[in-house]
Amino acid sequence: MTVLKTQEPCITSVTDLPTSEAKWVTLRKVSYVDQTGAARTWEVAARKTRAASAGVDAVAMGNVLLHPSRPASTVLVIQYRPPLDAYTVEWPAGLVDEGETPEQAAVREFREETGYVCEVVSVSPAQAADPGMSSANMKLVMVEVKLGEGDELPEQRLEDGEHIQRVVVPLAELHERLVEYSKQERMVVSAKLFHFAAGMEFMKTKGGQYRL
Amino acid sequence: MTVLKTQEPCITSVTDLPTSEAKWVTLRKVSYVDQTGAARTWEVAARKTRAASAGVDAVAMGNVLLHPSRPASTVLVIQYRPPLDAYTVEWPAGLVDEGETPEQAAVREFREETGYVCEVVSVSPAQAADPGMSSANMKLVMVEVKLGEGDELPEQRLEDGEHIQRVVVPLAELHERLVEYSKQERMVVSAKLFHFAAGMEFMKTKGGQYRL
Repeated sequence: MTVLKTQEPCITSVTDLPTSEAKWVTLRKVSYVDQTGAARTWEVAARKTRAASAGVDAVAMGNVLLHPSRPASTVLVIQYRPPLDAYTVEWPAGLVDEGETPEQAAVREFREETGYVCEVVSVSPAQAADPGMSSANMKLVMVEVKLGEGDELPEQRLEDGEHIQRVVVPLAELHERLVEYSKQERMVVSAKLFHFAAGMEFMKTKGGQYRL
Repeated sequence: MTVLKTQEPCITSVTDLPTSEAKWVTLRKVSYVDQTGAARTWEVAARKTRAASAGVDAVAMGNVLLHPSRPASTVLVIQYRPPLDAYTVEWPAGLVDEGETPEQAAVREFREETGYVCEVVSVSPAQAADPGMSSANMKLVMVEVKLGEGDELPEQRLEDGEHIQRVVVPLAELHERLVEYSKQERMVVSAKLFHFAAGMEFMKTKGGQYRL
């Protein structure tokens, strides 16, 4: 399925959304007693979709494409994200469905967004997406795809309304490419992906100096 | 100022928070026209506090403590976070105030949360904190602290209601320590910090194999 891009996405209105009408996210007021016994409150954004079975909202797939003659690469997805009114650069990611394990969600979402069948290499503990503001959490699932010499980019299996571009970036150039993307108008890199790349770059440039 | 920890923080109630009553966060309904011309909507959580001057909500400080005779280390902060009802492990971070640059916010917040005066090494582009759900963004500010041989942990300058523990972790052990923290009851690592550490670890363990 190929959907032609006929125009730039464009916001037509932004309105306050009453909490009672929201289907996907919500606001909560948490009242708590702190370490000193003082009563305090905190305002929290939360997803309403967390699958009880997995206990985690989402997975992101840190992925390595292994090709016989090309450098080890990773596939990134670029899509218009209404929350930022921008195109974001991210690793493939998605919500975990009820009854799915994080591994199963990773393989399913990775196939939907990239077309590739992947093997799961490791699953991280649950991580807090934005701990000062929201209860959202996620796991980083590292996956590998072993390609043959002549393999071409497979077809995506996107849901209605999903328009996701894929780009394949050599891992050795990941940080540099994310910095370049960030300079383009209306493009933003996801903090998680950027931090992973910054960690790689830190090890490469400072690892020797600091004896890491 | 030392505040004694007299008890475990404890949530006393969680209620839906009407959007109209929220001071720090909000919900918005974004209506937009997508690439194919179809009218769509998206539910967005947003901070209400973004300083117009900086254009970014927050900074996090990826930090290196350099000591004459100890290994290069980083200081992490552990605090009770009501959104997760857990203690989170994060790099020091905070909101950018009106009129501040991200660099100024980084130095100020780093001093408040850790007690250390730091030097800014680099500032990242703006990164999307959780792009499918929220408009929140942040910059990663890398900082260094040069310690003398006998320097001890300085006093924090916390605001009323802030209870933040500091731990100093050798950078070479960062990923392993975050995995260990994640196994402890009621502890969660921030996704950004974990991804940075995972990127370092990836480079260390796979960098040779993949010729990165």
